[in-house]
Amino acid sequence: MSLFGLSLRSRRAKSAQTAKDRLQILLAHERGRGSGAPDYLPALQRDIVQAVRKYVDIEMDDVDVRMDRSKDVSSLEINVEIPAAKTARLRSKD
Amino acid sequence: MSLFGLSLRSRRAKSAQTAKDRLQILLAHERGRGSGAPDYLPALQRDIVQAVRKYVDIEMDDVDVRMDRSKDVSSLEINVEIPAAKTARLRSKD
Repeated sequence: MSLFGLSLRSRRAKSAQTAKDRLQILLAHERGRGSGAPDYLPALQRDIVQAVRKYVDIEMDDVDVRMDRSKDVSSLEINVEIPAAKTARLRSKD
Repeated sequence: MSLFGLSLRSRRAKSAQTAKDRLQILLAHERGRGSGAPDYLPALQRDIVQAVRKYVDIEMDDVDVRMDRSKDVSSLEINVEIPAAKTARLRSKD
C-alpha cells in the first residue's frame, strides 16, 4: 500500500553485507484540503527517536534526519546506523 | 537517500484532494550479518502509535498496521487516516 508517495520495497542493498544494523524511519503527513493541521512531525520525530532508544543503545550522533516540507505534505526521513556491538549489548540484557 | 529499499518520493496521490489528513510511518530494521539483534519492531510500533496520539486524537480503529519479516529485514507500515474534524479539534487546543 502506498498512500502518497511513500513505499516499501523489498530489494536489499549491498550494505546488507556489512556488520551494522540499520534502522530507517520515514514519516509523511498529508494535510487534507483546508484542514490547517499543525505540523507536528518535528515533535513526533523526537518522540520516535526517544522510543527507539528504549530498544537500541544509540547516540544522537548516530541519527541522521532529513525533512521536506511543501504546502500539503511534510515528510521526514530518519536513518540510524547501529554498530553491531550496541545491538549485541542490548541482546545481552534480555 | 535510500538505505535498503525504503524511499521517499514526491509525487502526490489523488487522495490529496480529500478532506482527510493522512499520516504514514514506515520503519525498516535491517540486521547486519551475525548481529542477532532482537526484533523490537512490534514493541516500537505500540510506542509510535502512542506518540502519534499525543498530537492527533485518533482511535485505534483509525490505525492500519502491516508488518513484514524476513531473515535480515523487518519492516513495519503504519497508516493513519485522520478526519478533518479531529485535526481541527487538535488545532483549537493550541
